[in-house]
Amino acid sequence: MRVISIIPVTGLPIIQHGDDIGLLICEAAAKQGTPIEDGDIIVVTHVIVSRAEGNIINLDSVSPSEFAKTVAEVLGKDPALVEVILRESRSIVRMGDGHIISETKHGFICANAGVDKSNVPGERNVAPLPKDPDLSARIIRQRIREVSGKDVAVIISDTHGRPLRNGEINVAVGVAGIKPIRDRRGEKDLFGYTLKVKQTAIADELCSAAELVIGQADEGIPVAIIRGYPYERAEDATARDLIRPREKDLFI
Amino acid sequence: MRVISIIPVTGLPIIQHGDDIGLLICEAAAKQGTPIEDGDIIVVTHVIVSRAEGNIINLDSVSPSEFAKTVAEVLGKDPALVEVILRESRSIVRMGDGHIISETKHGFICANAGVDKSNVPGERNVAPLPKDPDLSARIIRQRIREVSGKDVAVIISDTHGRPLRNGEINVAVGVAGIKPIRDRRGEKDLFGYTLKVKQTAIADELCSAAELVIGQADEGIPVAIIRGYPYERAEDATARDLIRPREKDLFI
Repeated sequence: MRVISIIPVTGLPIIQHGDDIGLLICEAAAKQGTPIEDGDIIVVTHVIVSRAEGNIINLDSVSPSEFAKTVAEVLGKDPALVEVILRESRSIVRMGDGHIISETKHGFICANAGVDKSNVPGERNVAPLPKDPDLSARIIRQRIREVSGKDVAVIISDTHGRPLRNGEINVAVGVAGIKPIRDRRGEKDLFGYTLKVKQTAIADELCSAAELVIGQADEGIPVAIIRGYPYERAEDATARDLIRPREKDLFI
Repeated sequence: MRVISIIPVTGLPIIQHGDDIGLLICEAAAKQGTPIEDGDIIVVTHVIVSRAEGNIINLDSVSPSEFAKTVAEVLGKDPALVEVILRESRSIVRMGDGHIISETKHGFICANAGVDKSNVPGERNVAPLPKDPDLSARIIRQRIREVSGKDVAVIISDTHGRPLRNGEINVAVGVAGIKPIRDRRGEKDLFGYTLKVKQTAIADELCSAAELVIGQADEGIPVAIIRGYPYERAEDATARDLIRPREKDLFI
């Protein structure tokens, strides 16, 4: 019987611009008695990645466009925040009911283009998604390998609302060292039936699993280790594999 | 540091019509050395629930309508299977590319109205979703309480594709004893910022976490125990809370 553990990484410092997240994760994991092991999957929330990369925007430094001001007034939002959301977007899916749903430059469709206010120090500061979340994941993975000698997978997670279902779940926006989708077509089930449609978005499932320990606002746990899940390694992995172009979507 | 464990329940017999799933889970969990504990969350795949409830349809017994025959020809599907899918649906979202996306009578929007071929014994047998998955979950929860004396949550899971993202994930179609959405609006983050939008679909996240041990077709593990996650109890819980009506959806 193979039990999977979801281990919160506690004791991390408040991550700041220039911090070495890979190193800090190794140190914190060791200190709490769960040093990094080969095959661990490290799930990191995007906000600390943006903070470490200096990708934090002070809304007072942003000069909103005329369009941003109009939208802000209609939606009852901060004009500077709307401007940041527009700059992070390549198209708008819907505006209404106080929300902006847009497609980010990476291709993710989510509220506010993934720009987060929570867990960002400074009252007027917001954190957009990392510019290249796959690259961010690769850098953290590489540093963990250098520091600990262990081969791990790294996933950058974000909290997304989703169509058709209430509530948000955590999904993957960047991956390194792990194939984000497990293609099980051709495998046989319990009764010998060959699976015809089965491609499991395991990177998203791993982020949702990690959220069970990460999602405690007061504790501020931004990283989880998932241990005991045998995943398919991939050096050229990208979270873009998880994005389905709208024109190919049968659900909507 | 609170570690969450995802424990596969191994050694269950092939579930058949009339089987007492609650009892069998208690026995199998005890036998493998992880007896049920208070506060466990038991995630059960819907197919074994439908099998236990006798909710299995032999396609040879189904007489397809004219419409089902036409659709089957257009999509290259079995006419009897199309008939079953139509009977399980209250509306069709899209037909195309070999797929039927529909809204089930419960309100879930998914492929094939949730009718499964895999892990169903008998070449011509398929398993629809349970008629009332919340009720199914309540019955299993009640039996576990009677057999083990433990208070647990039970979630019935299904594998769903979803809009905008590739790959399937496991989500909740029935719940008992657990609030499926955790409302965190009003909580404060690490820096004292009050969360304004944060309603986490934890029942879905728990199903995705469980899939990490369930999703091994060859092993045929239909049940997982998630241990160590503090959840909000609710006696009147329903997975309907997870369904967002299409007319209220900003994402599509």
